[in-house]
Amino acid sequence: MAEGIRINPDRLWESILTMARIGATRKGGCARLALTDLDKQGRDLFVGWCKDAGCSIDIDKMGNIFATRPGTSSMQPVMTGSHLDTQPTGGKFDGVYGVLAGLEVIRSLNEQHIDTQNPVQVVVWTNEEGSRFQPAMVGSGVLAGAFELSDIYDCQDVDGLRFEDELERIGYKGSKEVNPPEAIAYFEVHIEQGPILENANDIIGVVTHQQGIRWYTVTVTGQESHAGTTPMLLRKDALMTAAGIALKVKEIAMDHSPAGCGTVGMFDCYPGSPNTIPGKVVFSVDLRHPDNSTLERMESALITFCDSFDNQCAIDIDAYWKYAPRAFDNTCIETVQNAAEHLGYCYQRMITGAGHDASYMAQVIPTSMIFIPCKDGISHNELEYASKSDCAAGCNVLLQSILKTAVEVSKSG
Amino acid sequence: MAEGIRINPDRLWESILTMARIGATRKGGCARLALTDLDKQGRDLFVGWCKDAGCSIDIDKMGNIFATRPGTSSMQPVMTGSHLDTQPTGGKFDGVYGVLAGLEVIRSLNEQHIDTQNPVQVVVWTNEEGSRFQPAMVGSGVLAGAFELSDIYDCQDVDGLRFEDELERIGYKGSKEVNPPEAIAYFEVHIEQGPILENANDIIGVVTHQQGIRWYTVTVTGQESHAGTTPMLLRKDALMTAAGIALKVKEIAMDHSPAGCGTVGMFDCYPGSPNTIPGKVVFSVDLRHPDNSTLERMESALITFCDSFDNQCAIDIDAYWKYAPRAFDNTCIETVQNAAEHLGYCYQRMITGAGHDASYMAQVIPTSMIFIPCKDGISHNELEYASKSDCAAGCNVLLQSILKTAVEVSKSG
Repeated sequence: MAEGIRINPDRLWESILTMARIGATRKGGCARLALTDLDKQGRDLFVGWCKDAGCSIDIDKMGNIFATRPGTSSMQPVMTGSHLDTQPTGGKFDGVYGVLAGLEVIRSLNEQHIDTQNPVQVVVWTNEEGSRFQPAMVGSGVLAGAFELSDIYDCQDVDGLRFEDELERIGYKGSKEVNPPEAIAYFEVHIEQGPILENANDIIGVVTHQQGIRWYTVTVTGQESHAGTTPMLLRKDALMTAAGIALKVKEIAMDHSPAGCGTVGMFDCYPGSPNTIPGKVVFSVDLRHPDNSTLERMESALITFCDSFDNQCAIDIDAYWKYAPRAFDNTCIETVQNAAEHLGYCYQRMITGAGHDASYMAQVIPTSMIFIPCKDGISHNELEYASKSDCAAGCNVLLQSILKTAVEVSKSG
Repeated sequence: MAEGIRINPDRLWESILTMARIGATRKGGCARLALTDLDKQGRDLFVGWCKDAGCSIDIDKMGNIFATRPGTSSMQPVMTGSHLDTQPTGGKFDGVYGVLAGLEVIRSLNEQHIDTQNPVQVVVWTNEEGSRFQPAMVGSGVLAGAFELSDIYDCQDVDGLRFEDELERIGYKGSKEVNPPEAIAYFEVHIEQGPILENANDIIGVVTHQQGIRWYTVTVTGQESHAGTTPMLLRKDALMTAAGIALKVKEIAMDHSPAGCGTVGMFDCYPGSPNTIPGKVVFSVDLRHPDNSTLERMESALITFCDSFDNQCAIDIDAYWKYAPRAFDNTCIETVQNAAEHLGYCYQRMITGAGHDASYMAQVIPTSMIFIPCKDGISHNELEYASKSDCAAGCNVLLQSILKTAVEVSKSG
């Protein structure tokens, strides 16, 4: 029985550091944007490592890479993976850790001569970050039917370069059709990108839900006028109205705490002069909750507040993106939780606040995620850090989850 | 007696429209920035008109133009004037109206053969707007001792061109020293740039004070983090803190209403992404009140609030500019008020919320201002508008105020 086997923490760590040299930034982070030469170098390194580990390689028309360690009696793989692309000032762990943890699982199985009935497959999803080409998470998104392949092909970066052309240029436009896989499960291990595990001194997050997300652009239109000559009662001050709405966003989230989140992240004020009362403010609102009816109530509270706001500014709310909450698969969740328990790691059940490729995969096959802490909850930042031991812990949970699902057949070593 | 004489509304209006052709914008405004070729054209037009009206012309080292109609028995002029430069998207009236109203007074005195004991002098102040070269109001400011001439000479525009070089280039670096004038009074007529007169259906504002102004830059530093993965209670959200302070600025002003003003006009939020909690917000605060001790209390209220703000962000307040309130000269104020009463115009005593060259002049000679309404209170805008009849009314008040002060000696026509 393989319940006692563990991954090799040093080898995993070394792989992460080696991959991090490709696109390394001076501040210790990574800039390896999708479909760049650096992305190609990262992919080539990964593919080489997988071939060395005896895997077959398939690449689909989206550039998603599938590295497969064969099973003994089934064609349906257990999948794991994540992405190799980064933010422009990204870190060494976001995405990359999940891909290399998958590779480390395969290397460990090889090293300990463990066969499984089902194949084990590590996937690298194309353009998860959406930094160079928008939208984000398109590799898994096209596969799950959320986007049309042709639409994504036509996306352009700021220099006007097409997605499809760049994919072809780096040699990763494969021939495999982009369809939902015949897989029995998908597990993705990832840094939390938030402070919850660290704050609770937990090592493993057993992820049960992708929370729902709703994005709005709010435009407040008042009257630009002189700060010194316009009495307070005669003002149509777009900024003061916007500030009131921003604080209401916070209040709405607090009313649905701890799961509810409300953020105003973008806030542009016009014309932006110290002695001119702003005539227009455009800002973003991001509302999140794992329960859809609660999210609906949060949205209603925001709209009701804006409708009844006692002032002379016009308020326009453009609700331009909704992402419904999604529960991960109960069996997969239990598998991860049992693995964490078996390994003796402190864990908690939690939701994922960020979007991941796993969120799209959950629409087509049984899926769950494994989180590990990251220092100070910081991610999308060159300072992003996860410890070697936490990386090993998450990878061990992944190994046990895969073994449980792919079914060990023999220990021939 | 000249109490019955009136200026010529059509001639004044025609002069305003003629001047507005220099730097005219497609939306009906003016872009005639300080020390540009267009500024030179405007100055040349004015100087030509003044010479035609029999005035002598002096130009000082700041480029301020003094057009003088001689008096019969004194060397000490009664001064009036304003500025010809505009904002980049300025209007036809701000400043220009005050200059051309002064010219119209001289033309009317000439036409009606009225002599005065004291000379009547119309001044064009250099760079009132501060749009191309900062700071603003430097022509009158250097004269009043608020700035050093050499410092202003060294100011550069965004293209690195020096103030002194540009002044010389357009031919308006005069030889006259920039010293407080031996004048008995200064009257400046100007559009209100606010909505108070229009709202009250008054035609004349008898301006009694320049209100005090204090400018601050507030920097709120929190922690940039992911909008989906950071629970509300673990956030250091710079935007929510900044929004709270902005609303406090409004509350402080309302507590000292109607004279108190509080504005947040500039508001920059970093990094400015919908799904990132802002780590830093930098914003401006503009506090105004005509009474200095009240303004002091308003400032204290702001600082106390920020000091006690219950959150995890750092708040830095940089108080970088203070402009003390200044009462205008009582005799000048009474002269203006009597003129408005005599002419039968609806008027009110009011403060000036904006800064004007008159504010610096008030530091060195007896000064007051005359306001007329502008449509919807809009200024620093191509849509800025004042009616022909209101322009005439303000000019008639100016004429009577000058006549009262310069002392009519004969009606020789």
